[in-house]
Amino acid sequence: MAKLGFIGLGVMGSRVVKRLLDAGHEVTGYNRTASKAQWLVDMGMRLAPTPRAVAEASDVTFTMVTNTAALLQVFEGAHGLLAGLAPGKTYVDMSTVSPAASRELAGRVTACGASMLDAPVSGSVVTLEEGKLTLMVGGDRDVFRKLEPILLDIGPKATYVGDNGLAVTMKIATNLSLAVQMLAFSEGVLIAEKSGIKREVAVEVLVNSAIGSPMVKYRGPFVLQMPNEAWFNCNMMQKDMSLALELGRDLAIPLPTTTITNELLTAARGMGLEDYDFAIVFDVLARLSGVQTGREGKGQAS
Amino acid sequence: MAKLGFIGLGVMGSRVVKRLLDAGHEVTGYNRTASKAQWLVDMGMRLAPTPRAVAEASDVTFTMVTNTAALLQVFEGAHGLLAGLAPGKTYVDMSTVSPAASRELAGRVTACGASMLDAPVSGSVVTLEEGKLTLMVGGDRDVFRKLEPILLDIGPKATYVGDNGLAVTMKIATNLSLAVQMLAFSEGVLIAEKSGIKREVAVEVLVNSAIGSPMVKYRGPFVLQMPNEAWFNCNMMQKDMSLALELGRDLAIPLPTTTITNELLTAARGMGLEDYDFAIVFDVLARLSGVQTGREGKGQAS
Amino acid sequence: MAKLGFIGLGVMGSRVVKRLLDAGHEVTGYNRTASKAQWLVDMGMRLAPTPRAVAEASDVTFTMVTNTAALLQVFEGAHGLLAGLAPGKTYVDMSTVSPAASRELAGRVTACGASMLDAPVSGSVVTLEEGKLTLMVGGDRDVFRKLEPILLDIGPKATYVGDNGLAVTMKIATNLSLAVQMLAFSEGVLIAEKSGIKREVAVEVLVNSAIGSPMVKYRGPFVLQMPNEAWFNCNMMQKDMSLALELGRDLAIPLPTTTITNELLTAARGMGLEDYDFAIVFDVLARLSGVQTGREGKGQAS
Amino acid sequence: MAKLGFIGLGVMGSRVVKRLLDAGHEVTGYNRTASKAQWLVDMGMRLAPTPRAVAEASDVTFTMVTNTAALLQVFEGAHGLLAGLAPGKTYVDMSTVSPAASRELAGRVTACGASMLDAPVSGSVVTLEEGKLTLMVGGDRDVFRKLEPILLDIGPKATYVGDNGLAVTMKIATNLSLAVQMLAFSEGVLIAEKSGIKREVAVEVLVNSAIGSPMVKYRGPFVLQMPNEAWFNCNMMQKDMSLALELGRDLAIPLPTTTITNELLTAARGMGLEDYDFAIVFDVLARLSGVQTGREGKGQAS
Repeated sequence: MAKLGFIGLGVMGSRVVKRLLDAGHEVTGYNRTASKAQWLVDMGMRLAPTPRAVAEASDVTFTMVTNTAALLQVFEGAHGLLAGLAPGKTYVDMSTVSPAASRELAGRVTACGASMLDAPVSGSVVTLEEGKLTLMVGGDRDVFRKLEPILLDIGPKATYVGDNGLAVTMKIATNLSLAVQMLAFSEGVLIAEKSGIKREVAVEVLVNSAIGSPMVKYRGPFVLQMPNEAWFNCNMMQKDMSLALELGRDLAIPLPTTTITNELLTAARGMGLEDYDFAIVFDVLARLSGVQTGREGKGQAS
Repeated sequence: MAKLGFIGLGVMGSRVVKRLLDAGHEVTGYNRTASKAQWLVDMGMRLAPTPRAVAEASDVTFTMVTNTAALLQVFEGAHGLLAGLAPGKTYVDMSTVSPAASRELAGRVTACGASMLDAPVSGSVVTLEEGKLTLMVGGDRDVFRKLEPILLDIGPKATYVGDNGLAVTMKIATNLSLAVQMLAFSEGVLIAEKSGIKREVAVEVLVNSAIGSPMVKYRGPFVLQMPNEAWFNCNMMQKDMSLALELGRDLAIPLPTTTITNELLTAARGMGLEDYDFAIVFDVLARLSGVQTGREGKGQAS
Repeated sequence: MAKLGFIGLGVMGSRVVKRLLDAGHEVTGYNRTASKAQWLVDMGMRLAPTPRAVAEASDVTFTMVTNTAALLQVFEGAHGLLAGLAPGKTYVDMSTVSPAASRELAGRVTACGASMLDAPVSGSVVTLEEGKLTLMVGGDRDVFRKLEPILLDIGPKATYVGDNGLAVTMKIATNLSLAVQMLAFSEGVLIAEKSGIKREVAVEVLVNSAIGSPMVKYRGPFVLQMPNEAWFNCNMMQKDMSLALELGRDLAIPLPTTTITNELLTAARGMGLEDYDFAIVFDVLARLSGVQTGREGKGQAS
Repeated sequence: MAKLGFIGLGVMGSRVVKRLLDAGHEVTGYNRTASKAQWLVDMGMRLAPTPRAVAEASDVTFTMVTNTAALLQVFEGAHGLLAGLAPGKTYVDMSTVSPAASRELAGRVTACGASMLDAPVSGSVVTLEEGKLTLMVGGDRDVFRKLEPILLDIGPKATYVGDNGLAVTMKIATNLSLAVQMLAFSEGVLIAEKSGIKREVAVEVLVNSAIGSPMVKYRGPFVLQMPNEAWFNCNMMQKDMSLALELGRDLAIPLPTTTITNELLTAARGMGLEDYDFAIVFDVLARLSGVQTGREGKGQAS
């Protein structure tokens, strides 16, 4: 078993650590708010005071944070993980950041003799807990081969997609469809509903039809009842859409469904609905159609 | 076992008849080009000379044709099926026509003492042959209950959605997502490909991710190799999209992803690609991005 | 001076008649609600009891009605204008109908020995009263030449664009930009306003900039104060947009800005704002952005 | 007459300097490629070796460069203009940069005791030479009042819109309509053309209609004959669209026509047409519609 480090013990990150501990690995963790990690300490995880200390204590250090800015905070500086890396060590970033940022970090990691992989996950907390989470991996193929057994302790499949930065690219290319599928689904539900079909019936038919992706199956029922806590709120979704649109612009690829869906996410924010799961695009469309959903802006209610 | 009639023995219709014959029903069929139905005659189906003769010979008559115009051709007139209906008989339309047209036919059927259901299918030839095709049913609930056993000989599930015309509504509300999901998928593939990921790898990752609906699993690989014969070509898909947009306009529901995807289908036609499966929207986007696919307009090649 | 007939004495039609009377022509008029035409009778116009009677009394008969259905009502039947046409007479339709419908009427007019032109106008009541209205004309070029002097009594310019139906085509091709320009203008105003620029200042700058078309100059100030009576309400605008989208589909031309703007007009209807001038798309966008306009649905208020 | 400085003597900047010289001002100029400014030197302009030297020699220093990066190059550093500013001096930026960047520079200018205005222009070289260019001005109102006479030597109107950064905001809010109007215009031309109207006739009718903004009048004829040198190429236009989309995202304003038009500009780049004037979106749409324009990618031809 390997000595592993994990920085970023949020909803997803903490559950990845749990799986790694369950698989028998030694894990040293770091979280900005250390108290949130107590349950993992109870399970055997060690806490380190800084990202650097994590990297120093580990053969392989993972990060899983919200965005590029958050990643730089744990990566750089005197207490950053980069300062704790050394030849022979490996750094694996599971965050969804811009491919350019990912490649730049990889260059800095390589410059100090260590190796980096980008390994974002496809799936949700539920998929993760069911042990069905798949990973996409970018970086040196030999480094990937060496780490593969550890990655397979996280989920059943790790697909090597190419050089550094290409796994986050693949993640972004996947995630744009999450929002687009949700919006198209909402268009269908509203056509059915305004025609006289009950919303529940419409949802049931759609999730069981040819368009019923895992995303549609999970989130489709959200239009009936939004979860109290967003799985992935509008701001988070819009971050990923913006990364996609940036790639589209840089690479000269028009992205018609991504861009139009992104505007509806903007509208969700304009209407005060940004704290909901991004499935709330249904409500944006419903309001435009004069259909009631009984939900209000989260900020307005409190 | 019931005496059944079936009008419209195309790719889908003929395979439905096969399932009904396999289930032990007597089937009388009609097709404009009778020769195409020989294999069903060999299996025991009787051929009738007109739609009217089919309806006269049957307790329950089905139709499954291309569009509203084709439906009216077999429905009306001296040789039409309406002329063969009588009190106690049932007529089931499995075509995708406009809900308004479907409701109008139902009125005429009811006026002559018979009953009508609209029962479009969700799925493809493959789903049908695997016995996994689901039906949505609109019309009188008692008539639906009476016919349900026969419908379940076609597929494993028949969902009652409401009054006449609501099942085709539900079908249209479903189908818009087929095209939208395909276009969003294409956007993802092109981002991956222009970033340096092999197209095959991108397709594999996407179809196995959270966005992998049955549609994405079937058609995703089409971007690597288009089928010789379109499952559902651009014109057919655009017919369904136009029905959705008409409903959206009538019911005052904005349909952002449907409408923008429909314009790409228009572009497919403008570029001479309309005879391909609608998955060819990938090629439209690829051309806009300066990416080669090796495919040409079907009309131009011959 | 010629004997002229005019069917459809609405806001625009009645003012065209006034100009023709002012120019010294004899005019026989018809309106469904005859009382609305009293002021024209006071100016010397004769009233006829039916469209047919108008055509019988006139060398040149004009129509200017709301849509294709309204046009067929005055055109067909025992009392319709077609029954009053004869060899040597000319019929000029100034309505905006579908090019296909226009061509079909032209065929029927030609079949009875008369000639038809389609001659829709570009401009508003204001332009008309200022004598600046321009006409586009479709049909036989010689017929156009013969009628040109009369048409120039309506406005200063009549442009011959080609065969029957092509002038309404040109009108539709023009009108799509009205709505699109208005929506783009609204996007600009909201960016300015949410950044801290006063709405009045933003409007003033925009209408005087390079984007200040006559439409923008007329309608731009509407975002500050909507007119009590719509110049051209959402339903009317959406009729023209739908004609454009139909042409786009038939001719295989993707219309990205038309289609997306049309969805916002749909939203205006979904939100109960359809009785306002189509400049109300500003309010749709404002609501999506969380900006107050102080205007409510017209139907809801009463 | 004032001592003026001007940094950035490109197509627009140099002609602004000419107007200032014509008005009797002393002007000290700087351009990266000094030789391009020889004709201005011949007219009496002095050349300075660095931006700093320009600012040191002038009461009021102007900049007019391509983008934020170019602006920082002349603004910062030992030889930058900031180093040459002093209490009582004024700095006027006429470039189109992001409002946030503009505000940040204003803060740095104020910190050294000088004042800054952002004063982008609305219009083209033609408008400028005709003396019809209008300016929007952001910054301190008193500073604006003091400088107004000089600004009016550039164009006939200078509108004060508010605090620092708001004039560039207003410029961006204007420019999005340039591209949108051009694309909507193109949709109209193609509808006309594929219906059988000559492209020249369609252009003539449209530019003289209610949608004929100055932009449409200038650029409409480009669809018949593209200028050899782009007035404002796709990359420049897309820069401004991206600034608009960034504002839309930051301020939570959906921008449906901006975003969809921006994707067509992306397509222009994907098809190798980026060096053309942005009016080339006509060609993108024409290709999607199967219409020939006789133009090729600029890069491919050479």
